[in-house]
Amino acid sequence: MAAKRNATAAIIGAGDYIGGAIAKKFAAEGYTVFAGRRTADKLLSLKNEIEGAGGACVARGLDARKEDEVTAFMAEADAHAPLEVVIFNVGANVNFPLLDTTERVFRKVWEMACYSGFLAGREAARHMLARGQGSIFFTGATASLRGGPGYAAFASAKFGLRAVAQSMARELGPQNIHVAHLVIDAGVDTAFVRERIKAAGGEADPGQLMSPMSIAETYWQLHNQTRDAWTHELDIRPYRERW
Amino acid sequence: MAAKRNATAAIIGAGDYIGGAIAKKFAAEGYTVFAGRRTADKLLSLKNEIEGAGGACVARGLDARKEDEVTAFMAEADAHAPLEVVIFNVGANVNFPLLDTTERVFRKVWEMACYSGFLAGREAARHMLARGQGSIFFTGATASLRGGPGYAAFASAKFGLRAVAQSMARELGPQNIHVAHLVIDAGVDTAFVRERIKAAGGEADPGQLMSPMSIAETYWQLHNQTRDAWTHELDIRPYRERW
Amino acid sequence: MAAKRNATAAIIGAGDYIGGAIAKKFAAEGYTVFAGRRTADKLLSLKNEIEGAGGACVARGLDARKEDEVTAFMAEADAHAPLEVVIFNVGANVNFPLLDTTERVFRKVWEMACYSGFLAGREAARHMLARGQGSIFFTGATASLRGGPGYAAFASAKFGLRAVAQSMARELGPQNIHVAHLVIDAGVDTAFVRERIKAAGGEADPGQLMSPMSIAETYWQLHNQTRDAWTHELDIRPYRERW
Amino acid sequence: MAAKRNATAAIIGAGDYIGGAIAKKFAAEGYTVFAGRRTADKLLSLKNEIEGAGGACVARGLDARKEDEVTAFMAEADAHAPLEVVIFNVGANVNFPLLDTTERVFRKVWEMACYSGFLAGREAARHMLARGQGSIFFTGATASLRGGPGYAAFASAKFGLRAVAQSMARELGPQNIHVAHLVIDAGVDTAFVRERIKAAGGEADPGQLMSPMSIAETYWQLHNQTRDAWTHELDIRPYRERW
Repeated sequence: MAAKRNATAAIIGAGDYIGGAIAKKFAAEGYTVFAGRRTADKLLSLKNEIEGAGGACVARGLDARKEDEVTAFMAEADAHAPLEVVIFNVGANVNFPLLDTTERVFRKVWEMACYSGFLAGREAARHMLARGQGSIFFTGATASLRGGPGYAAFASAKFGLRAVAQSMARELGPQNIHVAHLVIDAGVDTAFVRERIKAAGGEADPGQLMSPMSIAETYWQLHNQTRDAWTHELDIRPYRERW
Repeated sequence: MAAKRNATAAIIGAGDYIGGAIAKKFAAEGYTVFAGRRTADKLLSLKNEIEGAGGACVARGLDARKEDEVTAFMAEADAHAPLEVVIFNVGANVNFPLLDTTERVFRKVWEMACYSGFLAGREAARHMLARGQGSIFFTGATASLRGGPGYAAFASAKFGLRAVAQSMARELGPQNIHVAHLVIDAGVDTAFVRERIKAAGGEADPGQLMSPMSIAETYWQLHNQTRDAWTHELDIRPYRERW
Repeated sequence: MAAKRNATAAIIGAGDYIGGAIAKKFAAEGYTVFAGRRTADKLLSLKNEIEGAGGACVARGLDARKEDEVTAFMAEADAHAPLEVVIFNVGANVNFPLLDTTERVFRKVWEMACYSGFLAGREAARHMLARGQGSIFFTGATASLRGGPGYAAFASAKFGLRAVAQSMARELGPQNIHVAHLVIDAGVDTAFVRERIKAAGGEADPGQLMSPMSIAETYWQLHNQTRDAWTHELDIRPYRERW
Repeated sequence: MAAKRNATAAIIGAGDYIGGAIAKKFAAEGYTVFAGRRTADKLLSLKNEIEGAGGACVARGLDARKEDEVTAFMAEADAHAPLEVVIFNVGANVNFPLLDTTERVFRKVWEMACYSGFLAGREAARHMLARGQGSIFFTGATASLRGGPGYAAFASAKFGLRAVAQSMARELGPQNIHVAHLVIDAGVDTAFVRERIKAAGGEADPGQLMSPMSIAETYWQLHNQTRDAWTHELDIRPYRERW
């Protein structure tokens, strides 16, 4: 457990795996973590784990698609202590044949995976620009770079999020805000993924799965880059992954 | 004027320049053109010009962001004669500093430039798959490939549209539907653009502007590719453009 | 057979399939074709076919890796009649595990697929710049955009050729020379390919093969683009190809 | 100074800036550094600095374009202690108008920036595969992703090197060798660059320059990634850089 810092790290989409691991990492490094997720109850175990380890965590139920909720969440985090890091990690991976992709699905996937990323990024920037520093990171996926059959909705949202990250990086970088987009290009090692593979009659190859803590480590390193050598995009995948 | 064909070509975003030129080209090649645009009145001169040249044009006021309107438009076009070509050409180029990009702007730009492209593509595919053939083309821009300061909204929508095109191409190609994305990477030679350049104290370099008819020609050639050699993405820019 | 033109089209790598089809296409459009290939004898049937159809073809044995031979070939073509089109189509597709990729193979593949493309492009530009116009096209492949196991040599050469094309396009475009790179992203329908598929125990899916004449048509259309709407890169693949 | 390790890190292109900084970083972390550079004498100050700080450095004059020299260099490094890291950092940035790009320049730039990267990578892999682990990193540049006027030679070589890296990453990753390509997309803060800017009548903006030590840090972090979350490509640029 590192010494406490007078700084907050906000994670939108603090789910059980990647988002949760990032929260634990920044908490362990002394940040007060503001963890946001649709259902507040589901944040309890994360909060308990962080606090049990001596860290600080504020858990908030949050619909990331609601501008006022995102605005309030960031304002609260920044009021608590300077908002130094914001990580947007909301997923929405779906696959439907084109003709079965309803307008409701298309819109909802975009709202979750792209529009809320814009809201989170803009509100983060508002506080960070006032103070002249900060890091804003976006979680991407294979579908951020490549469309595919059944992926009109998901790829469209992820391509869109990447454009938000890239536009923000180019606009905010010179103002000392580090914006990056991480392409997480493989499965994450979770109970859910292992069961899905098993259900499909296969067996999980651990060499093709990523540990959430390893992913969290990458966010941490990006945040620690000195500003004369910032990375704006990188991929991560396990060593046995075919790509 | 080519011989009349028993086929329709639908253009969504049949504006005064690119969209209008495409409409005229396909009409001249014998297609009945279904021209859709927000304000029906603005389609009058296009319709008159096409009909004056011996072509056929059905003009329809259309909010391309409304699922029922798009569905009805495509159904009407296909009922008139087999829907063979659909071109989505709605633009929404805006530039705002990130903090001034309201959620309303971000959403509206996406609805115009990405979401309505999805609707048009899906409804086009519905009719074309039933018949086992067709072409669906999307108009892209520099911002389809590259974000930039002030372009969070526009680039995000254009990246998203490109993902729709790419996902559709991969899903529908094997079913004999040709889907392509055209990156129009420069200014179009219009009164509006020339005046904007003049207002900025410059002088238009004709070598850096594209004629709408030349662009329309590219759509026509793509539509005429034999299916053993389909292009799914290409760029177009004038010879003196710097890129 | 179109009317004779006072212009030459030079094809380096005028092989039995793509290169030969391009030669026939430009000959049919009235160009005198200068066909270059390693072994002059292998050009006989192409020359006979072109001349039998009323076209003009000069066949030259040519090692495209030899600067003086390329220089002489272009000079001869331009002396015959203005050199209007040059197409570089030399292939060198090999796959070796990295440790088995000898320096000789790596160098030879590069000399054939990249270095000779540079020589051809530069010598073509020399004549075209003097006259202020021309088209220079390069044949690319999947490996132009993507490396893969066993492809260190081939992908490296094809990536390198693409950079030559892109650098030339940006330098020569404003001087009225149209440079383009075509990504031929699938198998070509040839006796060789069909037999290779059969030998592997499979059956050729005609929907995943391209006809050389269809490819040649794409080169022809690119050459005919007006300069206010030039394409610098496009892909071509058959409709049933997975990509 | 970290504890000594029984491992070597080989740097090909151990120049005064990036390469030298990488050498110092790995030496400080306890590696015996094998530093290779065209002129052995120019390695003296690097060797002295490393040894003065308590590190270990073997300096070797090396023509990285000579297969036997590269083979011997890697073999010597691996015989000294297990070869764990190889970094290829040879530059060759030149800009010539296309017509002034001699075949000698084109070939030499490729030999320096691409072909020797292949040799270094292949020979590194030979030793690492035998032992089942290792890291091989390649230094890229803006020209690795984008051609430009005057850059036919340099961009072609850098594109080619990137293909080598990508092909090796896909082939060797599953065998536990981490291969990555770093796009260093800006000027490095050196006396040479500052003087060049001054000579051009400008003033160096420190916010647009990278410190070699910051770059070296990135190589170090990549080498320390756990294999379930490897990065294969990333960019680095200073915060005020326009891109």
